[in-house]
Amino acid sequence: MILILKEEVDLEGQEYQKLLDFIANFPDINVKVVEFEGETRSVREIHLIGQTHNVPEDVLGSMAGVERVVRVSTKYRQIGKHGANLEPVGFTYNGLHFDQDCLHVFAGPCAVDSPENVEETFRQLQGLGITTARMGAYKPRTSPYDFQGHGAACLPWVFELAGKYGIKAIAMEVLKESHIEEIYEELEKAGKPTGVIMQIGTRNAQNFELLKAVGSQQEFPVLYKRGMGLTVEESLNACEYIASGGNHNIIFCLRGVKSQFGAPHRNLVDFAHIPVVHRLTRLPVCVDPSHSVGSKDTSPSGIMDIFHVAAQGVISGANMILVEAHPAPETAWCDGHQSLTFDELEQFMQDVQVVRAAYEKRIDIFSSNLVKKMAA
Amino acid sequence: MILILKEEVDLEGQEYQKLLDFIANFPDINVKVVEFEGETRSVREIHLIGQTHNVPEDVLGSMAGVERVVRVSTKYRQIGKHGANLEPVGFTYNGLHFDQDCLHVFAGPCAVDSPENVEETFRQLQGLGITTARMGAYKPRTSPYDFQGHGAACLPWVFELAGKYGIKAIAMEVLKESHIEEIYEELEKAGKPTGVIMQIGTRNAQNFELLKAVGSQQEFPVLYKRGMGLTVEESLNACEYIASGGNHNIIFCLRGVKSQFGAPHRNLVDFAHIPVVHRLTRLPVCVDPSHSVGSKDTSPSGIMDIFHVAAQGVISGANMILVEAHPAPETAWCDGHQSLTFDELEQFMQDVQVVRAAYEKRIDIFSSNLVKKMAA
Amino acid sequence: MILILKEEVDLEGQEYQKLLDFIANFPDINVKVVEFEGETRSVREIHLIGQTHNVPEDVLGSMAGVERVVRVSTKYRQIGKHGANLEPVGFTYNGLHFDQDCLHVFAGPCAVDSPENVEETFRQLQGLGITTARMGAYKPRTSPYDFQGHGAACLPWVFELAGKYGIKAIAMEVLKESHIEEIYEELEKAGKPTGVIMQIGTRNAQNFELLKAVGSQQEFPVLYKRGMGLTVEESLNACEYIASGGNHNIIFCLRGVKSQFGAPHRNLVDFAHIPVVHRLTRLPVCVDPSHSVGSKDTSPSGIMDIFHVAAQGVISGANMILVEAHPAPETAWCDGHQSLTFDELEQFMQDVQVVRAAYEKRIDIFSSNLVKKMAA
Amino acid sequence: MILILKEEVDLEGQEYQKLLDFIANFPDINVKVVEFEGETRSVREIHLIGQTHNVPEDVLGSMAGVERVVRVSTKYRQIGKHGANLEPVGFTYNGLHFDQDCLHVFAGPCAVDSPENVEETFRQLQGLGITTARMGAYKPRTSPYDFQGHGAACLPWVFELAGKYGIKAIAMEVLKESHIEEIYEELEKAGKPTGVIMQIGTRNAQNFELLKAVGSQQEFPVLYKRGMGLTVEESLNACEYIASGGNHNIIFCLRGVKSQFGAPHRNLVDFAHIPVVHRLTRLPVCVDPSHSVGSKDTSPSGIMDIFHVAAQGVISGANMILVEAHPAPETAWCDGHQSLTFDELEQFMQDVQVVRAAYEKRIDIFSSNLVKKMAA
Repeated sequence: MILILKEEVDLEGQEYQKLLDFIANFPDINVKVVEFEGETRSVREIHLIGQTHNVPEDVLGSMAGVERVVRVSTKYRQIGKHGANLEPVGFTYNGLHFDQDCLHVFAGPCAVDSPENVEETFRQLQGLGITTARMGAYKPRTSPYDFQGHGAACLPWVFELAGKYGIKAIAMEVLKESHIEEIYEELEKAGKPTGVIMQIGTRNAQNFELLKAVGSQQEFPVLYKRGMGLTVEESLNACEYIASGGNHNIIFCLRGVKSQFGAPHRNLVDFAHIPVVHRLTRLPVCVDPSHSVGSKDTSPSGIMDIFHVAAQGVISGANMILVEAHPAPETAWCDGHQSLTFDELEQFMQDVQVVRAAYEKRIDIFSSNLVKKMAA
Repeated sequence: MILILKEEVDLEGQEYQKLLDFIANFPDINVKVVEFEGETRSVREIHLIGQTHNVPEDVLGSMAGVERVVRVSTKYRQIGKHGANLEPVGFTYNGLHFDQDCLHVFAGPCAVDSPENVEETFRQLQGLGITTARMGAYKPRTSPYDFQGHGAACLPWVFELAGKYGIKAIAMEVLKESHIEEIYEELEKAGKPTGVIMQIGTRNAQNFELLKAVGSQQEFPVLYKRGMGLTVEESLNACEYIASGGNHNIIFCLRGVKSQFGAPHRNLVDFAHIPVVHRLTRLPVCVDPSHSVGSKDTSPSGIMDIFHVAAQGVISGANMILVEAHPAPETAWCDGHQSLTFDELEQFMQDVQVVRAAYEKRIDIFSSNLVKKMAA
Repeated sequence: MILILKEEVDLEGQEYQKLLDFIANFPDINVKVVEFEGETRSVREIHLIGQTHNVPEDVLGSMAGVERVVRVSTKYRQIGKHGANLEPVGFTYNGLHFDQDCLHVFAGPCAVDSPENVEETFRQLQGLGITTARMGAYKPRTSPYDFQGHGAACLPWVFELAGKYGIKAIAMEVLKESHIEEIYEELEKAGKPTGVIMQIGTRNAQNFELLKAVGSQQEFPVLYKRGMGLTVEESLNACEYIASGGNHNIIFCLRGVKSQFGAPHRNLVDFAHIPVVHRLTRLPVCVDPSHSVGSKDTSPSGIMDIFHVAAQGVISGANMILVEAHPAPETAWCDGHQSLTFDELEQFMQDVQVVRAAYEKRIDIFSSNLVKKMAA
Repeated sequence: MILILKEEVDLEGQEYQKLLDFIANFPDINVKVVEFEGETRSVREIHLIGQTHNVPEDVLGSMAGVERVVRVSTKYRQIGKHGANLEPVGFTYNGLHFDQDCLHVFAGPCAVDSPENVEETFRQLQGLGITTARMGAYKPRTSPYDFQGHGAACLPWVFELAGKYGIKAIAMEVLKESHIEEIYEELEKAGKPTGVIMQIGTRNAQNFELLKAVGSQQEFPVLYKRGMGLTVEESLNACEYIASGGNHNIIFCLRGVKSQFGAPHRNLVDFAHIPVVHRLTRLPVCVDPSHSVGSKDTSPSGIMDIFHVAAQGVISGANMILVEAHPAPETAWCDGHQSLTFDELEQFMQDVQVVRAAYEKRIDIFSSNLVKKMAA
């Protein structure tokens, strides 16, 4: 059961104390306060966990300070929507706002390689007006004999360069608890010139210990990539692990699923699940066209499949795009075959803009249709 | 090996005879003439099948009447593109043109039920300016104890009503060779008031005998639905069966694949394969959002998932949409839970239009970028 | 609802007429008599189809001539077990008995090629004491340009040779209704020197029209191969199509499912479903190790994977094995890479015997344990 | 490239030094010594990693102290077989030997619950002559709100009780690096009354950091469970991570794969891959019938599916079985529905014995056939 508090309620005040006193009459209930920081307002919720079946909804609903009472199933307790009225307020990180309405493009190489390439990447992003990058310092590789990333050693100069070119956030994969600490320390040392979004990769999608670790800190938002062998439900349950630790700043990323039916694409694109995640949860949804498609193959119209599937994501409401770009894809240490050049990235951004405008037009039309219907 | 003839070549004339004489020097080669009827021009190809490895390409290429010579792998011999220059000319049926640039929406119920519902369907389609319908007389059902469709008995009144409301083509599934004959006869008897596109359902996607049967007639185009358990390659091989019988008027339909990762959708939407089929073959590509999604669930924006995935198809170049609509979905004999009302279909058409405009804008931009690049 | 009649009931007699009269009191019920011919007894059942919910079970159960009354769900109405007491009586064809206790090995080439090879195959089988063969006259091939089998033309000499070497039944795939007729006629012409079991291939596993066709004849038993992309439930539903036409002589064949997780095997072996089909239905269960494994790879012990998976089938109760063998596998027109030589087949038979003995020992132990438990 | 040393070679001696000196002539080569401890002999190998393409195989092969030279592909460098002659020597842990010929049954509950149940489990195992148990202290659960296991707190009494009843090894899952340390310390404190095999669960099958952690210690063998969404190749690559850290005492466990085609079983049983892993690697292979089947459903013969699939494993050479058993399955905190009672476990052991005898007979026959063939 969730009580949504009125905005003005003071957690030190009498109203709130009365609420707690009333709840104390029912045994075996844990009380937990959860706060969501939105752009226009913030929401505070009191989560009652345990034997709530005989707690009277109507009594609670009429108490001072309570805006709404929602009975929730245990499924997706923290990340779930639990009825149409619990709007997804989203969160703000380092000046960037994330919710189910936004659209950000995070571009960059698969892995950090040389300082020259990293600097060139940030310079090019700045030129395109992009402040959100992606690149990995820690890389999980299928074979132990492949390049595993530079690790913590590259963080100082990566962060410094990011700051130099106005990058506000880098999506960066972490593989173990200590990586969170390393990133935190290096950012502090460097004077926080940029921000990091902690990416949980598809291979760790059910590494519950790692999920608890990113969930129990509040410093960094988490970009959770759907397990390539997991259902939407299993993946959302894993996100609930993160949220249950206290961190609600989660973005859910679709990146294709592993399927014999995906070929010639690397994975079977699963972006049709965008509206599903929007419906079931409060989470913004990211798409990763690069890993989904896995090549730069081009349709007869001259448009790459990567562009086409990104367009499929945007036209149905994607809130974030991860796309691989590299100053010299043919020399990239990993995934060069699917990395855009910066010329191509410029076209990509132009294409995304066209499709986003169409998405917004769709939303406008449906909203006004809804208004007409309600008026009738 | 394929010889594309110049348009003016006379198959009775000397030039052509010389070609044949030259080819006759090589043993074990079969010669087959294939014609594609396009909107602005028609294309005639001479297919050399067999031991063509020592047939000199350059000699043939310089002979009178030959526009181009293309060496083809045996893969997708008839439906394949075999190099960028073999443009997909498409085909025209009953006044409707189908190619990789068109967009048609075929709407209607899963199965023919009552004359009242069928008439109401056609009337509503006419009201929306739609001349292309879908409905099944023969239904393949998972259980032998379920309703199997009215069969041939309903064809007379269905065709008559279709004609009355200006329907030019109905997409209609056939399950065995005799159904083709039945449809042909009933259309003839009724005076051809409408047309039929023969649909091969997903359960018959590798029923090669049925594929040969629809391939060896030229009267009806074929709408081939990807097997829900087949790769793109296996499905295209099956289309090649149709084409190898002589019928090139084939539309390839994506309808989602069967996967544990599709839930809560009925199937895992596979529309990311639109550009793939456009690249590999000459076939127009259809999408079926109704069977892919399998419900009328709606995202928080008020837009059904069916609309969202249809939009994903259209934004990446789909040439045809199959969508289920019914005058009273709650009484439909099958698939009512995923059928739109006609009010909803009207919104659907409006939505498709917005997205199609964006697709065309994308194409324009890429074309002009290409032109600029070539000019540079 | 199913009434199992006592053995002595005369369908022309008074007892039976009284039963029908009583049932006639309930509207909307169809009555269908189904007979199963077993080795030691035959079973006759009266199937009541329709609105049976208010037919009193106890009244019917106490009427003369009625041995037992079973309420069935509509699921697997004909092939299902519907409770532990409806024993699977099996069927006899051309002197061969098939039930859930038997074990037959059907060996031979994928496709009929030359008379010499076919004769050598039958001669070798006779030498090994095998009277059950497999070979295809009609072959479904993924590409239309591959060898499609000799078709009806080879049937006369295949049947004659089979008879000459004492082959009692050949498992032979049919692809369309007319093939049944062709086989019937050629067998008749040849004087029925052998028998045929009609195989439904995995690609036609949901070709319901073909299933109805083999189901509506009683001459030939049907070997139904699980669809490589179908669940057990969907495949059993398809078998129900066969049975609903009147033919109950069905063998269910597991042949591996298509899965990205099967490699390096051609398919993912699914023989763990043997006890499932034994539990849910009355059908004998066949396994096809050749198509499941798809190669002659050998484990370090010197035993081929084909032998290992066949052993897995036999140890858990398989009733029939399809195995590919050819006089000269390297020259076979299809599937030579997975065909045994006859030396290898001899080893295979020896191996099967060892494992079958262990299976029978397992059954003995469990039976006596059950007896002990009941005595206690 | 791998040099297998003669047994008598002294790593401090002259022969060995000469070898190193010769190798030092080639740049960019790392030398690593790997030792395998077998029952009858131990094997020492020198692994040359890097640019070995121009290292002369014949020269090295003829040098003193070198028994054999094997060029390896990088695939499965440490765990692979690399040719028929590199026999799998296996390893011994706490008096238990593991190789590709052994068979051990590890039985017990899914999770440690009460001391009473744990003691009763060990007592029953002792009664059945079993010294190998399974039970989890750390449990990965799909939902964060489910019981997560007792963790380190239960280790002292679990280890003490195990020792009391003669248990030599417990298969126990670890989820993070610190769990290895916790287990090590508690075993030490308790005076090592028993042993532990570190289980890597299917959800961590590509948690490479955890694999490196269990791979970089030599105290405990590792039981690696195939990822439910991974191919055999991907899973073996993950095992290579363990081995590349220095720990070669690895057992590979098949536990079914996640597939829509597995129902009504919980997973699709994949035990046909036993001979594949035996062929490709040196690893012993374990099977987990409990998690594969996921229920105690019983075939008409009175034998549970769990028994049938275990039999499928044993008949094709499984070296270890994990099976869930609990003193009171209906009260177990997890997986009670698939847990055997100890009466059932007794039957299970009897069944395994019958099937194992048949497997050994198979091996004998093939060995003597091989001998005959070589003699001929």
